[in-house]
Amino acid sequence: MDPRALQELLAAVRDGSLSIEEASRRLEESPTLDLGHTRLDVGRETRCGHPEVIYGAGKSPTELVEIARALMQTSGRLLATRLSPEGAEALCEAIPGAQHHERARLVCAGVPEEGEGLVLVVSAGTSDRPIAEEALWTARSLGAHAEHLADVGVAGIHRLLAHEERLRAARALVVVAGMEGALPSVIGGLVERPVIAVPTSVGYGASLGGLAALLAMLNSCASGVSVVNIDNGFGAGYSAALINRTQHPTRA
Amino acid sequence: MDPRALQELLAAVRDGSLSIEEASRRLEESPTLDLGHTRLDVGRETRCGHPEVIYGAGKSPTELVEIARALMQTSGRLLATRLSPEGAEALCEAIPGAQHHERARLVCAGVPEEGEGLVLVVSAGTSDRPIAEEALWTARSLGAHAEHLADVGVAGIHRLLAHEERLRAARALVVVAGMEGALPSVIGGLVERPVIAVPTSVGYGASLGGLAALLAMLNSCASGVSVVNIDNGFGAGYSAALINRTQHPTRA
Amino acid sequence: MDPRALQELLAAVRDGSLSIEEASRRLEESPTLDLGHTRLDVGRETRCGHPEVIYGAGKSPTELVEIARALMQTSGRLLATRLSPEGAEALCEAIPGAQHHERARLVCAGVPEEGEGLVLVVSAGTSDRPIAEEALWTARSLGAHAEHLADVGVAGIHRLLAHEERLRAARALVVVAGMEGALPSVIGGLVERPVIAVPTSVGYGASLGGLAALLAMLNSCASGVSVVNIDNGFGAGYSAALINRTQHPTRA
Amino acid sequence: MDPRALQELLAAVRDGSLSIEEASRRLEESPTLDLGHTRLDVGRETRCGHPEVIYGAGKSPTELVEIARALMQTSGRLLATRLSPEGAEALCEAIPGAQHHERARLVCAGVPEEGEGLVLVVSAGTSDRPIAEEALWTARSLGAHAEHLADVGVAGIHRLLAHEERLRAARALVVVAGMEGALPSVIGGLVERPVIAVPTSVGYGASLGGLAALLAMLNSCASGVSVVNIDNGFGAGYSAALINRTQHPTRA
Amino acid sequence: MDPRALQELLAAVRDGSLSIEEASRRLEESPTLDLGHTRLDVGRETRCGHPEVIYGAGKSPTELVEIARALMQTSGRLLATRLSPEGAEALCEAIPGAQHHERARLVCAGVPEEGEGLVLVVSAGTSDRPIAEEALWTARSLGAHAEHLADVGVAGIHRLLAHEERLRAARALVVVAGMEGALPSVIGGLVERPVIAVPTSVGYGASLGGLAALLAMLNSCASGVSVVNIDNGFGAGYSAALINRTQHPTRA
Amino acid sequence: MDPRALQELLAAVRDGSLSIEEASRRLEESPTLDLGHTRLDVGRETRCGHPEVIYGAGKSPTELVEIARALMQTSGRLLATRLSPEGAEALCEAIPGAQHHERARLVCAGVPEEGEGLVLVVSAGTSDRPIAEEALWTARSLGAHAEHLADVGVAGIHRLLAHEERLRAARALVVVAGMEGALPSVIGGLVERPVIAVPTSVGYGASLGGLAALLAMLNSCASGVSVVNIDNGFGAGYSAALINRTQHPTRA
Amino acid sequence: MDPRALQELLAAVRDGSLSIEEASRRLEESPTLDLGHTRLDVGRETRCGHPEVIYGAGKSPTELVEIARALMQTSGRLLATRLSPEGAEALCEAIPGAQHHERARLVCAGVPEEGEGLVLVVSAGTSDRPIAEEALWTARSLGAHAEHLADVGVAGIHRLLAHEERLRAARALVVVAGMEGALPSVIGGLVERPVIAVPTSVGYGASLGGLAALLAMLNSCASGVSVVNIDNGFGAGYSAALINRTQHPTRA
Amino acid sequence: MDPRALQELLAAVRDGSLSIEEASRRLEESPTLDLGHTRLDVGRETRCGHPEVIYGAGKSPTELVEIARALMQTSGRLLATRLSPEGAEALCEAIPGAQHHERARLVCAGVPEEGEGLVLVVSAGTSDRPIAEEALWTARSLGAHAEHLADVGVAGIHRLLAHEERLRAARALVVVAGMEGALPSVIGGLVERPVIAVPTSVGYGASLGGLAALLAMLNSCASGVSVVNIDNGFGAGYSAALINRTQHPTRA
Repeated sequence: MDPRALQELLAAVRDGSLSIEEASRRLEESPTLDLGHTRLDVGRETRCGHPEVIYGAGKSPTELVEIARALMQTSGRLLATRLSPEGAEALCEAIPGAQHHERARLVCAGVPEEGEGLVLVVSAGTSDRPIAEEALWTARSLGAHAEHLADVGVAGIHRLLAHEERLRAARALVVVAGMEGALPSVIGGLVERPVIAVPTSVGYGASLGGLAALLAMLNSCASGVSVVNIDNGFGAGYSAALINRTQHPTRA
Repeated sequence: MDPRALQELLAAVRDGSLSIEEASRRLEESPTLDLGHTRLDVGRETRCGHPEVIYGAGKSPTELVEIARALMQTSGRLLATRLSPEGAEALCEAIPGAQHHERARLVCAGVPEEGEGLVLVVSAGTSDRPIAEEALWTARSLGAHAEHLADVGVAGIHRLLAHEERLRAARALVVVAGMEGALPSVIGGLVERPVIAVPTSVGYGASLGGLAALLAMLNSCASGVSVVNIDNGFGAGYSAALINRTQHPTRA
Repeated sequence: MDPRALQELLAAVRDGSLSIEEASRRLEESPTLDLGHTRLDVGRETRCGHPEVIYGAGKSPTELVEIARALMQTSGRLLATRLSPEGAEALCEAIPGAQHHERARLVCAGVPEEGEGLVLVVSAGTSDRPIAEEALWTARSLGAHAEHLADVGVAGIHRLLAHEERLRAARALVVVAGMEGALPSVIGGLVERPVIAVPTSVGYGASLGGLAALLAMLNSCASGVSVVNIDNGFGAGYSAALINRTQHPTRA
Repeated sequence: MDPRALQELLAAVRDGSLSIEEASRRLEESPTLDLGHTRLDVGRETRCGHPEVIYGAGKSPTELVEIARALMQTSGRLLATRLSPEGAEALCEAIPGAQHHERARLVCAGVPEEGEGLVLVVSAGTSDRPIAEEALWTARSLGAHAEHLADVGVAGIHRLLAHEERLRAARALVVVAGMEGALPSVIGGLVERPVIAVPTSVGYGASLGGLAALLAMLNSCASGVSVVNIDNGFGAGYSAALINRTQHPTRA
Repeated sequence: MDPRALQELLAAVRDGSLSIEEASRRLEESPTLDLGHTRLDVGRETRCGHPEVIYGAGKSPTELVEIARALMQTSGRLLATRLSPEGAEALCEAIPGAQHHERARLVCAGVPEEGEGLVLVVSAGTSDRPIAEEALWTARSLGAHAEHLADVGVAGIHRLLAHEERLRAARALVVVAGMEGALPSVIGGLVERPVIAVPTSVGYGASLGGLAALLAMLNSCASGVSVVNIDNGFGAGYSAALINRTQHPTRA
Repeated sequence: MDPRALQELLAAVRDGSLSIEEASRRLEESPTLDLGHTRLDVGRETRCGHPEVIYGAGKSPTELVEIARALMQTSGRLLATRLSPEGAEALCEAIPGAQHHERARLVCAGVPEEGEGLVLVVSAGTSDRPIAEEALWTARSLGAHAEHLADVGVAGIHRLLAHEERLRAARALVVVAGMEGALPSVIGGLVERPVIAVPTSVGYGASLGGLAALLAMLNSCASGVSVVNIDNGFGAGYSAALINRTQHPTRA
Repeated sequence: MDPRALQELLAAVRDGSLSIEEASRRLEESPTLDLGHTRLDVGRETRCGHPEVIYGAGKSPTELVEIARALMQTSGRLLATRLSPEGAEALCEAIPGAQHHERARLVCAGVPEEGEGLVLVVSAGTSDRPIAEEALWTARSLGAHAEHLADVGVAGIHRLLAHEERLRAARALVVVAGMEGALPSVIGGLVERPVIAVPTSVGYGASLGGLAALLAMLNSCASGVSVVNIDNGFGAGYSAALINRTQHPTRA
Repeated sequence: MDPRALQELLAAVRDGSLSIEEASRRLEESPTLDLGHTRLDVGRETRCGHPEVIYGAGKSPTELVEIARALMQTSGRLLATRLSPEGAEALCEAIPGAQHHERARLVCAGVPEEGEGLVLVVSAGTSDRPIAEEALWTARSLGAHAEHLADVGVAGIHRLLAHEERLRAARALVVVAGMEGALPSVIGGLVERPVIAVPTSVGYGASLGGLAALLAMLNSCASGVSVVNIDNGFGAGYSAALINRTQHPTRA
């Protein structure tokens, strides 16, 4: 509970406008909404600046729609990731204005207008695109102006260097790569902005499902690089959007 | 090479004020300074907003001093981490104005004035302090106003919640924890700013030298959390300082 | 063999009412029932207070029914876990009074009346429910009064703290979580009762099929936390029920 | 904060005996004691039934003594584990009534009188003794009557079976083993009480510092077995003592 | 080449009955039979006392039949493991006298008469049976008298001890177990014969596909235990048969 | 950019035949061809002596054909690996002269005439053939004379030694083996040429998907052995072809 | 208890020569000798054909001597492995006739006369010698005629093949190798006797302390190979001696 | 044995100039030299073009000197790696003309004259130098002209690109890097020659002693890259020298 809200509540207790029992209940309970299958954390937007995001994996279309409706009612915004085609379709039918980004496997609605700044999502190979697009659309869902620079892996380093100026224009960079995961180190050495590195499960054999890229990124010799889970484009896009908007906070 | 600098160089070739050979050499060579044992990347500050940082592990006091002097001459700033006591002492003697932060095992000099904003470093247990202080002094070396909130591990969650307001005041948070590495998830759910999580090697047995905490942080159920290498307080402080200053860039 | 039974057997030998050969055979053989495919440990209930539990994975419906019938005859109780839908159906048809708990994938019969005390099963996210319910119904099958508090993950810590009183009312707690597995540490710091932590395989990438949560729980900074295998709701419910009934033992 | 305490506080606000500012401060702050190097969680005993335990690894004798004194003042009890010989000696000199158990590497003071019940610590080999004794003295420090049955590894199974009656007399068992970690499975099949298994780092090569025993215990085919971290005798003794006293709770 | 054969060859060269070219060719080439898809090591039986065994995984029915025919022609014996149902059927149709052991997934033909001695295959749980039967039929294919004692896991230790005499009657024991893999340690402590331990992939979560059992067996505290690959019933049966027949070698 | 090309460009700027803007653009951009889904690195052949190779996994037949056409236009050569049957068929229909090597799962076109020297691909077992043939056809696609010696695993060492002379005739050897991965060590001790070792995922259980063979090869006690990723026949054939042609470089 | 002994005991009960209480005690207790620090399994020799072996690691000289004396009194034989120099010296002083084998780090006494047969210990490199000699002296301590063939690693395969006849003369082989651990596969393909493979921790980097060799040996493509723990020369020598004496059992 | 030598031997048998016994012995024995502690593979130079190399780790100065003398006598050449300072000193005193390269920890003698071509050793950071120099001096010991380009890590990519021409001049490249191990991928994309990648153990935490770099290199997205063990500068230099001299073989 917010300190100001707390003092107001205590004042209401003192002047008798609030019963002790009710005050006690309010102090003990956080705002949650129980949907039977899910206990929605309604206070998330107040605390974190963004309502809960739906992690779609393993949820039925019916559950997805119920949670999405509750979110639209309480916050007017929706972001659902890792959706099956059926789940995405159900959401698009149920939620007016919902957009489905197929390759990114996500649905969003109530996306705010693009703010200032630039989140640049950079990816190494063709197979890294789905994860890069998940990062891209997550950042846009949080109100960031976001762009994607694709297919600039380190084995053709000149492809990357041709875009040095664009790299340096971003306020936050998401760098997506599988296999040896070297791209964040090279980019981290070219820019003065934070880099969020996303290892992907692209590869085979000793890539160990993306662990090789993850370890490489954690050991980056460039400063200013931090890392999210394998294939976690959502998390990287979210962090980058938060970084981008430190300059123009959405809440007073 | 910066595009404007490139066009100037080409103009100089056209008007004959620069020979083809010299232009060719400049285009081929990046600015490096060869110290015999080390090839200093003098262009780092121009590209990344901060000169090279000395990773002290395994360098002799003599090498440290030579690199530090070269850095002070070319940039007027110094940050050296993971120093042995001997290395730190040698730097303090050789570099005027150098400060030694013992628990953090780093030396810095030419630290810029504190800018706006707040980088908050939060740590879980007593044993996590050295890493937390490395993050703290790294962020300060990059010009951030940085503070430390210590010893607020999740087994006494009320200790942490008592500081909710302070947590929410930061522009960027560094969260340092060993053992089960749960603290970033709890904090990530309380704030609307990016969290840089630092797993530490504090623990034994199945902590696997910090791998348990690292994996936990990579799997955080809170959004906005990204992770650096085990015990990499430097990397976290660096990223947090970059995030903090997106609001007041140091270069035009 | 129970010491008293042993002395009775020896007395019977001495007074001639039992032949040496028969006594020898009884001493050498433990009570087992050979069903062809399975050798039932009929003495389990005497030794451990509960008959053998059927681990359903990989057993055919026919085998399941045969073992279940033998258990019902020798002990009047049945608990079968990790059942395929076909296996569960076969058991429900064959065993009078059998109940099927679908999400928990288990069938039980002859469940004793609820005793005193409370086993509280707490779970972090929607996807952890099947494992939590396996724990819930296992504890109930052993005669415990058991309840489930769902969807109180650490990223919304206030959701959890709202239930502090309920947490403290339990004699034993089962805490189920995937991803970073932080929930047992937070709960362990709030109660004075033993916590059995269950890591789940919920997650992706660096969750390594639940290993990340398992390692986190083993490294819990809270005291009083012990851990079972990934997705082993059964084992946790079983241990919690044993703990709960230390206060009212079922056997003299 | 305890619900009753909360209602009393609110009543005091209403009747004016407590100012809003003070009530606000009390609600926001949990009881912690800041020792400079450590922030003591003074509320731990109220919440968990036992004050904080000192994890001695890495703490200086001076720090240990300061924390120990604070604990003795606030709770009259002390338990400090993983002590260096110097740390143990400093505690024994500073804290009246402190006992040092060398092999267990712990110091305790203010140990309560032994309660009812029995915690039985069973260990497999000679080298597992230090961990077993850490469990033993931890359980005793929490008020349990605890005994140790040593050197009954599974390669001489008759050594173990000779003690079947004693095993069955315990309310909670701690089973300590390195190498293949098989002992908890055998004991779990002989008793009807919860078993807390402790893998030790005893072994070499493919024991992987105790991981082999840890994995074996997590995969125990016996029901009622839960596991703590490698070499975590403290955690096992703590859990076992909590289990043992479910029958005679120390607090109303 | 066998030393005696070598001296005969050289004698034939000296007396002119063998040309240098032919002798040279024979010395350079080992006896192999090229089937196009496979290069059969025809000398295996001479060197190792048993012809090559067909590892069926990934081989087409046609390939299997061609190799089997070649083996029957050169040695009169056949053992093929890890067969698909189609592969097994094809072999049974093509090879007169071939027997198919379904649960063991192997086909054998030309099995020698049972020799003296006893290979005892012991298995822990119902799910370990297929691997145990692979060991059983492999040992029989090599001419051993082999028997199977099933379902005697360590959680019901009396089930096992009832068979102590039978265990002690074997010349070589194969012990098959999944999960925690404890059975070989207990048996190794009861007999004075070599134990070949076979970990199985039975289990889930932290069993890591059988690695937990494998590590446990490698760390057995009993002497005289050696280990084969996970689910390698064939290898264990083969080794046990070799051990069993050290007493009555098949070749002069 | 090639130094000579750079000086020519600068000369063209000086003599006015090239505008500063155009020169600037050429210097900044490397030659890439954007196909929408893929950014082709057209300069690869100039830099590396061979155009980009298509990694077929996960690419649709349409994408494959578009990339292949672009490659044929810019370089007249094509190599595509890890193709699905559909992908291979599409390429064979679209690209005149394309050859499909099924077992190797690759398609090539514009294969240069065989040069001097010999690349010898050696494989251990029947199941290693697909990877060995990928290496074989890759080497041929790069212009090498390449041969395959199959099924000479170490358990029949004489099968291998019979070919010692042929092994010694090669300029570069690719050695392919799964399971224990011992073959490169034996061959490395027989020849004076570089050996490229390829671990395969052939095996089960503790082969860990080829990791066992990979580790074995990295620890080879023979000198002159280097290793590529598990199942990476392509990479080994590519390296071997490069080694083979150091003697007759294809470019002046 | 041996069946015959059991029937004798029961007969003594019937004829009154043994009291029920005494019979009960004898049946419940196995023969152990409690030395305070160690509980000696005195029945081991009866069950397993060899008295307990002392694992010297971590035992003080005093403890070693006490255990050794108890063993000499009860069995007249002693084998102690992994001894520190001080431990070995103490044993040699205390136990008449004790021999110290320094490189093998073991002490033995009361070694039986050499029996028939041959245990051949083969090792790959110079650094594998200590482990090979531990195997050698262990086998001799169990009464085997044992020899050592050293330094015949696979990179010089002809060194090994020169000894083919000697390899084939053994009844059981112990094969010791570090690094890639290939030697057992080659030898397993040359002989018709069981091979016990011992991986050693010789190597660096990706040898992972011997895990690479261990995995290679578990995946051996040769039949008849089983494996013991890393550096476990004792276990291999013990198993080989058991195998060797299946032909001339030491007990009726 | 060389085929020509074999035919000569057989001819000598036929014409009676060689006895059957002697021929038999020569055929059975390969040329080895037994030094007591070591069995020298004297035929290595004939087979592999270079005599055995001494792996110094764990060998005493006396052993080193004896092996070195034997090598100098049989081949006139010496290369010893991983030497302790004492070992290096002993070799320098004992072997005339021996050179000690301290940072590389190796001693060589009888180094052949530099041949044609160029082996270029490239290293990423200051701490990678010792391994790079081991590669450098190994290549020179095998007769290669070898050079070292140091401190060109990917975080300052322009440092590397400035040397593109030099990179392209080499016939074989050794690329040495720790941490994220990205350098070989970038260089592999710039040259048309084989790259031997050497991961180093430089780093901390999630570098896992060099495993992170090793995995990255095995997953390189550049073609033509193969990998050796962690810190194995020797192996890389050896392979590179073999590659370099494919153009001018040293033996007819």
